Order: sequence, then C-alpha cells, then structure tokens
Amino acid sequence: MAHALRLARRGLGNVWPNPAVGCVLVAQGEVVGRGWTQPGGRPHAEAMALAQAGPRARGATAYVTLEPCAHHGRTPPCAEALIAAGVRRVVSALTDPDPRVAGRGHAMLRAAGCEVREGVLQAAACELQAGFLSRLTRGRPFVTLKLASSFDGRIATARGESQWITGPPARRHVHLLRLMHDAIMVGGGTARADRPSLNVRGLGAPLQPVRVIASRRPLPDLPAEDAAHGPLWQVEGDISDIMRELARRGITRLFCEGGGQLAAGMLGAGAVDQLVGYTAGLALGAEGRPAIGPLGLERLASAPRFRLVESRRLGDDLMHRWRRVTDDPAQDRHSQL
Amino acid sequence: MAHALRLARRGLGNVWPNPAVGCVLVAQGEVVGRGWTQPGGRPHAEAMALAQAGPRARGATAYVTLEPCAHHGRTPPCAEALIAAGVRRVVSALTDPDPRVAGRGHAMLRAAGCEVREGVLQAAACELQAGFLSRLTRGRPFVTLKLASSFDGRIATARGESQWITGPPARRHVHLLRLMHDAIMVGGGTARADRPSLNVRGLGAPLQPVRVIASRRPLPDLPAEDAAHGPLWQVEGDISDIMRELARRGITRLFCEGGGQLAAGMLGAGAVDQLVGYTAGLALGAEGRPAIGPLGLERLASAPRFRLVESRRLGDDLMHRWRRVTDDPAQDRHSQL
Repeated sequence: MAHALRLARRGLGNVWPNPAVGCVLVAQGEVVGRGWTQPGGRPHAEAMALAQAGPRARGATAYVTLEPCAHHGRTPPCAEALIAAGVRRVVSALTDPDPRVAGRGHAMLRAAGCEVREGVLQAAACELQAGFLSRLTRGRPFVTLKLASSFDGRIATARGESQWITGPPARRHVHLLRLMHDAIMVGGGTARADRPSLNVRGLGAPLQPVRVIASRRPLPDLPAEDAAHGPLWQVEGDISDIMRELARRGITRLFCEGGGQLAAGMLGAGAVDQLVGYTAGLALGAEGRPAIGPLGLERLASAPRFRLVESRRLGDDLMHRWRRVTDDPAQDRHSQL
Repeated sequence: MAHALRLARRGLGNVWPNPAVGCVLVAQGEVVGRGWTQPGGRPHAEAMALAQAGPRARGATAYVTLEPCAHHGRTPPCAEALIAAGVRRVVSALTDPDPRVAGRGHAMLRAAGCEVREGVLQAAACELQAGFLSRLTRGRPFVTLKLASSFDGRIATARGESQWITGPPARRHVHLLRLMHDAIMVGGGTARADRPSLNVRGLGAPLQPVRVIASRRPLPDLPAEDAAHGPLWQVEGDISDIMRELARRGITRLFCEGGGQLAAGMLGAGAVDQLVGYTAGLALGAEGRPAIGPLGLERLASAPRFRLVESRRLGDDLMHRWRRVTDDPAQDRHSQL
C-alpha cells in the first residue's frame, strides 16, 4: 500500500477533478502491475495496472489507495474491470466519499466473490487525498499559501524590488509545489504589478496548472493563453465565493502565491489549510512590503494558528511547512503537500 | 581537544572579560584532570585541572583550548603552573591574541622543555572564542540578535500585545542563550514599555548577565538592582559608540533582544554577527509591530545578508540561526552561540 501511495502522488496536480489514485497488483509474491491516475484523470490507476499485468492479474491481489469506482463514467467501472481480470483480493485504503461510489465499489467486489480489506494506511491516504476530500466534503479546494520573504517577513523593498529574495533552490521548490497543485492563484494587484508567469518550468510538467486571478474588479489586458501556460481564469467575489467557484470548476488543490492583501484575505477567512514559508537570510526593514496585509486582529488569541510540520534548508534559504490548527481532527489530517 | 572545547563552553557568559577556556590532562591514556574557566574568570582552566590531577600531572599531556597565559595577573601564569606540575606535553588550539600573551605562553613552555603542538581544532576554538576575539581584535563584542516573531515577522499586535507569541520551549531556549552571553541589551522604548526582567531563570545561572539599555536619552525610573538580576547599565550614543563602550567595560558576548528600532539600528550599522529567529505558527498581519524597524534600504542588493547555520523545532515553534555574510572569512568563523 505504501508503494501504491507513492505511485498515487505522481497524479497530484494533473488529474483534477479526479482523485490521484495508485494501484499495485501482486501475484505469487511478485509485482505484476503498477498504475496511477494518468494526466487529465484517465486511464484510472487500476486500468493501467491491469493492462500491465495482462493474464497475470488472474488470482492476484490489488492494492488500491481509494475504493475502486463502481459507476459508468467516461470509462467502465474499475471494480468491474478488476473482477473481469480475475483479481481475487482487493486491499483498499479509503472508502470513496463520492456519492456515486460511497461503498458500492467494495460491495460490487464482494458480491463477485472478491476478498476485500478496507482502511489500510487510511490516514496516509487521507493526507494524499486532502484536495479531493476537501472539494467533496467542504465544497472548496485544499489551500496552500506560499510566503517567500526576508526574515523580517517582507516580500519586496519599499520600491517593490523583489528579484530575488530567495535563491534558486527555493524557487525550484516553488515550481515543484506548483506542479503538485491544480491551480495557482494570485490577487489582482500582484497580477497587475508583477505579471508573474505562474507556470511550471524545468520539471517536465505533464499539465500546466490553471492560473487564477482573484479580483473584485474585472482586469483589463490579461495575457494571452498559450501552450506554456495553464488556462487563465479571473474569479470575482469574496474569498468564500471564490473558493466555492473554484471547487465547482473542479479544482481540488489550490496554491496561493500572494500578494499580501490576498494572503491576509485568505487567512482572515480561515481558508488556508497549509502554509509554506521560504525565509531568506536578509532583512528588508519595516518599510518593505509585508508578506501578509492587515488582518484587523483585536487580540493575540484570535490570530490564525498553524503547527510546524517540517523545516528544511533549501540552498541558503529555510523552507518551513505549517498546517492549520483546527478543531476538526478529520480536516487536520487532510494535509498532503 | 574536543573534550576540552566542550568544557570551555561551560564558561561562556560568566567569565568576561576573560576567555572561556577548557583544559584536559591525560596521563598514561587516562584523563587525570579536567578544568574550565570558573565564574568570574578565576581559577583558570589549567589551575582547576592541575588541582584535580595532583601528582598525576607529572609527565602528563595538557590539552588546552587557548594558549596558557604567561603574565602575572591576579594569579600566577598558567604556563608556569603547568611547568611546575611536570606536564611534559601541551597541545593547544589557538594562540592568544592578547598582547600580554601572544605566543609567550607557548615560548615559556618550550623553553622549559615541554613539547608544544599548536593549532589543533583551531577553527572550532575560534568559534568558541568569537566574543573574546571580537573584543580584542575588533574592539566590540560578538553580537547575537534575537527575533521572536509570528511567521509574518511581527513581535506584537497593533495594541502591543505580545505574550505569548512563542511557546515555553522557545522561551526556555532564550534563557539558555542569555546564560551564554555576558550582557543582554534592549532599546529604551522596549525598556520603558515592557520593563522586561532580562535575567536567566530556571537554569541555575552562576552569574546573571549585565542588563544594558541602549538609549539616546537618559531614562528615568530605572528598576532597582537586586540579586536576581545582573547589573543595569544605561549606555548612550550611536551604535558604534555603544559597542565600543561595552567592549571597554569588558563585554565579549552581547545578546540583543530588541525592540524593532534597536534591531534596525544594529543591522544598519553592520553590528549583528549572528541572528537567532524564533518563528511561531501564527499570523498577526501588517498592522502588527515589526520585528525590525525601518532600514532605509535603497536597493535589495544592499540588504544585510546572513547565511543559515541551523534550524530546529522547539515545541510548536521553529528556531533558526543565521550568521552574517562578511567579506572577511576570519571574522566569519567567530560564530559560536
């Protein structure tokens, strides 16, 4: 299952609105097929693994990170395909909360005489599926907020100079995170001032993330669409409108890259699940532009709180990842990068 | 020598203006004496180790982290004591730059027939002696700046509420750093507003650090001196005046605890050798009080730069330590916590 989870990770950021699933087929103690959800969401992990295994799937055990689907969509249901291939035992990590599945995949397998074991490495699978689960259960994407700043929390000098505060390894890591998210969002001010390209470079991305500009007013003069960039969406409204709209359009994992006003809006609305900081070894001083705009806090106790997950040196910079502290332990688990 | 360096560390913060030295005596493959500079600077490490070894010092090898002293001060010179005890071989890490020693200790030992080896683990000894060396060679203390802030670089809410941004483990670590410094400095504003107690609590400190208030104007209503606190000094002038005055009074290791104006002044004057950040998992927003005041930077390239030395989780907070990037590699080595 750990192997299947590693395979599933490959789909993060390029299978939305589908879940990123991994599947490993084992027969007579040997791996005979490995699959993961392909870019765009098809083929499914099970189909890929079965195609690889061919006749060796007969009598095999399938390890899947999510309950196999039971409904006819663009492809026949995976539960049916596993049965047809003669798979004898299915080990799954998580019941699919999608109402079209919701246990029916497991039931279909059992009815066909398959032995089914559920809930193996469930916590890790929840982590991996944080975006997919968030969209289905909360009606909004799983949100990662990026903050790349000086050690005094500034993202640019007073004049707006910001290239470069962090070094190449940290900037490469940002591209890796972009790759693992369905969409990248910036505020209207950042879009107007910096015109960031917001694509994934140097990592052989199979699919560019959607570029989202969150803005209360329509933006004139948007850049043209091209093959090196994902689609460009302008979304208006308050934060919860925007989150709902992105979920409606299928976004499961959203990477928010600033600026300070949008970061403050997202934090204030409780819409940030994860925070990734890149701290550079320089000071810009109080007149530098703040990473997070005004929050309007009355008291220290009402500040949005996060707990440290990991920290790591990236070149000369420090990367640190934090998870939102929430009262709901189930939500707190949905936290995979 | 590594053992002697670990012993020497025990003296940091309580032996100023003396260096914190460690000494290990080895005879027939056995440690027969261990010493380190005692609180207040006397006895010296060598005297302590020799007293412990007694007659077993005859024929022994002495590992010392700094050249034994050769001048008659409050105590007879350590080089003489080593000779008198019959030590046959001396291994030292560093030649003492103090003009009263400056090689004379090693020469005195050699003249008496001792075998002397110099420069063993010299880089580590320079690190340990950063404060002592800085005072002698630069005429100012080695300076550590502490920044305890939210992850957006704020040290208090707009109303000044700051208790507590960081958790108990980070605050305990601050007390450990205070213990290892000769003096703690805050600006006049912080002294007036917060009246921080600036002592070492809960760590059995043999000597409380001096409390320094850096202020352009005389401060009324200073707290009284008492046994639970170090002496209270008010020092006036610009940053370089203050640094010179503290060195003149014997301070080798200075811990600067803020506030934002003093931090900016110290950074702007190039007076910060080391930066210790404690980042808490909460956001206070742009109206919060900045950790570092205005720096008046014209360009990003002129921002004071530091390189990451280590980072570590402390409870729910992240501790990160940075060293100043300087053009002088010798200075860059003087960097022990």
